[in-house]
Amino acid sequence: MKHQLLTLLSALIFCSLNAQESILGFTPENTKKQQQLEVAFESKLKASNLDKWMQRMAAEPHWVGTAYGEKNANWIQKQFKSWGYDAKIETYHVLFPYPKIRLLELKSPTPYKAKLKAVPVAGDEFTAQGDALLPSYNAFSRDGDVTAELVFVNYGIPRDYEILEKLGIDVKGKIVIAKYQGSWRGIKPKLAAEKGAIGCIIYSDPADDGYGRGDVYPKGAFKNKTGVQRGSVMDMPTYPGDVLTPGYGATKDAKRLDRKDAPTITKIPVLPISYEDAQPLLAALDGAVAPRSWRGGLPITYHIGPGPAKVHLKLEFDWKLVPAHNVIATMKGTDFPDQWVMRGNHHDAWVHGANDPVSGMVALMEEARAVGELVKKGNKPKRTLVYCAWDAEEPGLIGSTEWVEDHKAELQQKVVAYINTDGNGRGFLGAGGSHSLQAMVGQVGAAVADPQKGVSIKERKSAVDMVRGGNEAFELYALGSGSDYTPFIQHAGIASLNLGFGGENAGGEYHTIYDTYPHYKRFKDPDFAYGVALANTAGRITLRLANADVLPFEFRQWHSTVSGYLTEIMTETDKMRTSVEKHNMMVAKNMFELAADPKKPFLKPAKKEAVPYMDFTPLQNELAKLKITISALSKIEISTLSKERLLSLNSRLMLAERVLTSEEGLPRRSWYKHQIYAPGFYTGYGVKTLPGVREAVEEKNWKEAQDQIIKLSKTLKNFNKHLQEIAAML
Amino acid sequence: MKHQLLTLLSALIFCSLNAQESILGFTPENTKKQQQLEVAFESKLKASNLDKWMQRMAAEPHWVGTAYGEKNANWIQKQFKSWGYDAKIETYHVLFPYPKIRLLELKSPTPYKAKLKAVPVAGDEFTAQGDALLPSYNAFSRDGDVTAELVFVNYGIPRDYEILEKLGIDVKGKIVIAKYQGSWRGIKPKLAAEKGAIGCIIYSDPADDGYGRGDVYPKGAFKNKTGVQRGSVMDMPTYPGDVLTPGYGATKDAKRLDRKDAPTITKIPVLPISYEDAQPLLAALDGAVAPRSWRGGLPITYHIGPGPAKVHLKLEFDWKLVPAHNVIATMKGTDFPDQWVMRGNHHDAWVHGANDPVSGMVALMEEARAVGELVKKGNKPKRTLVYCAWDAEEPGLIGSTEWVEDHKAELQQKVVAYINTDGNGRGFLGAGGSHSLQAMVGQVGAAVADPQKGVSIKERKSAVDMVRGGNEAFELYALGSGSDYTPFIQHAGIASLNLGFGGENAGGEYHTIYDTYPHYKRFKDPDFAYGVALANTAGRITLRLANADVLPFEFRQWHSTVSGYLTEIMTETDKMRTSVEKHNMMVAKNMFELAADPKKPFLKPAKKEAVPYMDFTPLQNELAKLKITISALSKIEISTLSKERLLSLNSRLMLAERVLTSEEGLPRRSWYKHQIYAPGFYTGYGVKTLPGVREAVEEKNWKEAQDQIIKLSKTLKNFNKHLQEIAAML
Repeated sequence: MKHQLLTLLSALIFCSLNAQESILGFTPENTKKQQQLEVAFESKLKASNLDKWMQRMAAEPHWVGTAYGEKNANWIQKQFKSWGYDAKIETYHVLFPYPKIRLLELKSPTPYKAKLKAVPVAGDEFTAQGDALLPSYNAFSRDGDVTAELVFVNYGIPRDYEILEKLGIDVKGKIVIAKYQGSWRGIKPKLAAEKGAIGCIIYSDPADDGYGRGDVYPKGAFKNKTGVQRGSVMDMPTYPGDVLTPGYGATKDAKRLDRKDAPTITKIPVLPISYEDAQPLLAALDGAVAPRSWRGGLPITYHIGPGPAKVHLKLEFDWKLVPAHNVIATMKGTDFPDQWVMRGNHHDAWVHGANDPVSGMVALMEEARAVGELVKKGNKPKRTLVYCAWDAEEPGLIGSTEWVEDHKAELQQKVVAYINTDGNGRGFLGAGGSHSLQAMVGQVGAAVADPQKGVSIKERKSAVDMVRGGNEAFELYALGSGSDYTPFIQHAGIASLNLGFGGENAGGEYHTIYDTYPHYKRFKDPDFAYGVALANTAGRITLRLANADVLPFEFRQWHSTVSGYLTEIMTETDKMRTSVEKHNMMVAKNMFELAADPKKPFLKPAKKEAVPYMDFTPLQNELAKLKITISALSKIEISTLSKERLLSLNSRLMLAERVLTSEEGLPRRSWYKHQIYAPGFYTGYGVKTLPGVREAVEEKNWKEAQDQIIKLSKTLKNFNKHLQEIAAML
Repeated sequence: MKHQLLTLLSALIFCSLNAQESILGFTPENTKKQQQLEVAFESKLKASNLDKWMQRMAAEPHWVGTAYGEKNANWIQKQFKSWGYDAKIETYHVLFPYPKIRLLELKSPTPYKAKLKAVPVAGDEFTAQGDALLPSYNAFSRDGDVTAELVFVNYGIPRDYEILEKLGIDVKGKIVIAKYQGSWRGIKPKLAAEKGAIGCIIYSDPADDGYGRGDVYPKGAFKNKTGVQRGSVMDMPTYPGDVLTPGYGATKDAKRLDRKDAPTITKIPVLPISYEDAQPLLAALDGAVAPRSWRGGLPITYHIGPGPAKVHLKLEFDWKLVPAHNVIATMKGTDFPDQWVMRGNHHDAWVHGANDPVSGMVALMEEARAVGELVKKGNKPKRTLVYCAWDAEEPGLIGSTEWVEDHKAELQQKVVAYINTDGNGRGFLGAGGSHSLQAMVGQVGAAVADPQKGVSIKERKSAVDMVRGGNEAFELYALGSGSDYTPFIQHAGIASLNLGFGGENAGGEYHTIYDTYPHYKRFKDPDFAYGVALANTAGRITLRLANADVLPFEFRQWHSTVSGYLTEIMTETDKMRTSVEKHNMMVAKNMFELAADPKKPFLKPAKKEAVPYMDFTPLQNELAKLKITISALSKIEISTLSKERLLSLNSRLMLAERVLTSEEGLPRRSWYKHQIYAPGFYTGYGVKTLPGVREAVEEKNWKEAQDQIIKLSKTLKNFNKHLQEIAAML
């Protein structure tokens, strides 16, 4: 009781200390109104709702196409309606594979049949739902029946194959076994297939995701020896969403690709397994001992192979169209109904998904409920709010992608910004997104109290960044992929954010049968304080975007961030050049061979192509011009502008992010239109900024790099023109 | 056959390509003679002798005081005599504890009694010698019988205790368990006792020294689950050698300390164990999960404790004086009999010691045999050669230390340099020592062929340094401690070298029952090619020092190295200052507390004392003056000097290293006299260069740091004066 009082007191002190003098995009007068609105909004948020709703939504498994998934969608719709929203369900018909046959066996030297089954644990009844639980598999693995020698490829990412090459080890015709992590999982079978492997096994190593991290479930939060991470392996860096309808909505009658022509289904069969199942396979390998950094936490010596371990992998799926139900709830804006502020979180899960996605979903719902209450009291938003609950995110961002593709033209006209959330935990604010929104998010971060420490979530984030050796300044991370913001920002060029708390809720439940309500209550955000903080943060951002006099896009921080990306690429190019020069000198002097142990496998490295001096000046010059325009733009005095001026100003401002896209998209993956942010072609979720230029440089495609520099400089030139037009309106 | 021919051919080509035009310290005429001598010397080296002698010496365990150790000493003496040396045995009477009681048990929560026994393995009869094998223990642990809760302290080194302190965990009254590695083992009980622990267990973690490194014995070279590393834990950084006779020889009638007053016996009982025995103890710990970098390779979650694991450790030793037999073999010099060039390797082992020390010992013997052959053919050395086989190195460099202490006055007058070897393997030259000898060792390195690659061992070393990201230039590492050079360089100020090959012979046999001839033949230097290379390298160095017109000390490389050390300390001081400033700012802003997870143990850090600006100019100025003197010195033309001049010049040159010592020694450990090199007080074997200044800075003892700067600058001034006197003689 005493503690609660103290918390209350410190919250009050916090609020009064942090009453901001001006809010970005608001006149002084409206700043005051908005502050009162946000305080009212915050006061309506109830943790108990989040708790109650999680118990409901995570009671049964609810992946796309399940009865319980549909029930959840209908229930969500009903909730939104009850809060005053115009809520509908938009359904798409999407390909979804359900596993029929999953067989993995070690044939020799010692036979072993993989169990492929996580065990129920004491104290968590949800893990004992037997056949109702989705079997562990990787969605969009192709069918297959292969037998071959095994090769251990560490994380199965490009630099691992470089090391294999140095060791003279080829995976052609083999089955590879790769550890989870190091990249998004879909990269592993993609790269393995490119290298000629015929099958791929992915396992969670206990050093990365098991007893090496902490006590395992149910004693602790981490992955026990039977847990398996499910997950999609579709080639999302090429395009996400329904594999049969690239670039357009998977409506009932849409034209569909033949499944065998679908480019984003894997080229080889792939299956995820537990570390209990991985150990006999890895222990049966011989050949070179794996490099030190490859070795994991199993009590064995990690060898690479190939063989003598020989494995048989057989996979067959039921490839069916299933309905994906997106819930779309609208609250019409009073002043600018055709300017939409969008919020979204997915509702489908791999199994129960208490953390992923329900913890984020219930925060979104509580936020929407509180906004609904405000509206009922007359506080209507100036712009239209659209709250979305996406289906089929887990198999490949399918629900949101199909919806965005289906409504692309309208969205590109009307959407101010999209704010995404997903699984949420305890700890620090993680905020990524368009850097034109960084200043605004920083202001909101300063206005929201951290539930554990009383200071603002921004201050706490600063503290943790500093303690970890980073900077004090608030920064958005750049968006790659991994959740439903992808179609909005990468494909439609809509300014986007992704928000969540974490850092103090580590566990091994991700995409397993252990992501349950009891696990969440013990190890994540037990009292839903951070769920409320998330609703508070995302809600304030939504309300500021909805009510701002001038949309709170700020381009000075955008400019310094993007300039930083260019500097990175230039520095990286210089480093590559120095490194190649040194490498070639060492090859010329035969140093690699002289240093090599003659008793260990070694392939003499060849000389590398010299790194040319790239002409980055087109980008430097465009950024220099942009700096001048942005400086002029930043001197706007909102108060002096008429309502008509504001309307046309905002109509242009909200389109600025669109100008950062190009219709032809990125090389070899035209679905990705954004020229500043993209998921890496060989990282999956991991972002590549200035992706056209950066990936060409990284792939040493110098011709393409120079072309992409020109292309990007044109994009920046258009962006400059767009901002100049806005400046001219003032 | 064809292969042998190629090897022979490439060796011939190598020799002709590498015929050097001048050898440091030799007139052009004598250069030619010396080259011929070295070629003749090399041609006499036979790998088969090394193989045969290893089989003999490593047939039975032979730690100090054993019958087989004495047999080996007598046999070595006989060998030297047969090669024409005047060989004698000099015996000291030294305290050596033999384990009578070794008991370690987990009392609760689940009782477990440690086995403390390594198993014999198939294919290695030596591991099956049962009670003849020395039980695993740490020599110079005190007796003790303690029961307490257990705490896991990672490597048990200073930064680990800093982390424990941050976590609010105290080891007072507890028994600590520490991993081997991270420091010399003796540091672990020393520091644990300083922190209030009452017992110490040391184990080999499989990640560092077991299956995590590679296949375990007998399948591979690495430590199996039962292997235990023996080793001394006497406080060698205070003084090495007999614990009862600090600073003087442990002759039969020497005055001895009472054992209870011996400062270098540990303050708490300490026992080394295997990872099989460690696992139940570690698994029984709870409390905070160990930081990520602390976790090892056992299939458990590493917790720190304290408790609930409670252990009982009981140790009792038979504390006896035993005879340590040093073999000293002399070959009198023709021209300068009172200038001694010394070579040494120890002959005692913990068990069989095929690698440590026999592989080095047999190389030394083959070198001495070849030199003996040359002498018989009339090629007598100009200076006196002294070959030494030390006893009792393993328990604490005892044999060599007592001998040096006993003969200190004569040695300081007569010894030109001491060249040490110890266990030897396959791979690259590792050469450490006085940097006045660096240029000479580099020249020898360029003259010796690498057995596997045909190029010089210097070129191969360069290649591996470059591949590992280092520099191409040949450099000696600085000597800390860990073998018999310590009393020579650290105590008597005699220029020293330590030589060996390695890098391609990793294994887990060190100080275990698995360091046997079969293990050596399979995993170390199977055909003794690197044993011969070691004899060749050390022999050429010995012969150059013995025959040089002007002793090959070169001070320009010494100067740049020592200047580098000063720069390091200055940079380190600046970094500490910046780091403390940042830390204090973060404390002031409460950032550590804001960043901390309230559900995890956390102690709010205090502000730290600001790092003052130290006045390093006395050292900078002395080094600047030295640079001028050394530059003048380097312009000597040997050919122009008379024989008398050369004699007096050399008499001064050989004393130069002595001038780098100070009679009062280092603070709190006056036995260590050298002012440029010392083993670290809290690293053990690891070197600290410019130790008086560096350790004061590291310990933030600013007053002492400034005093040590003055003291060191006086040493450098004396050194400058000494070199100026030499220059004046020219």
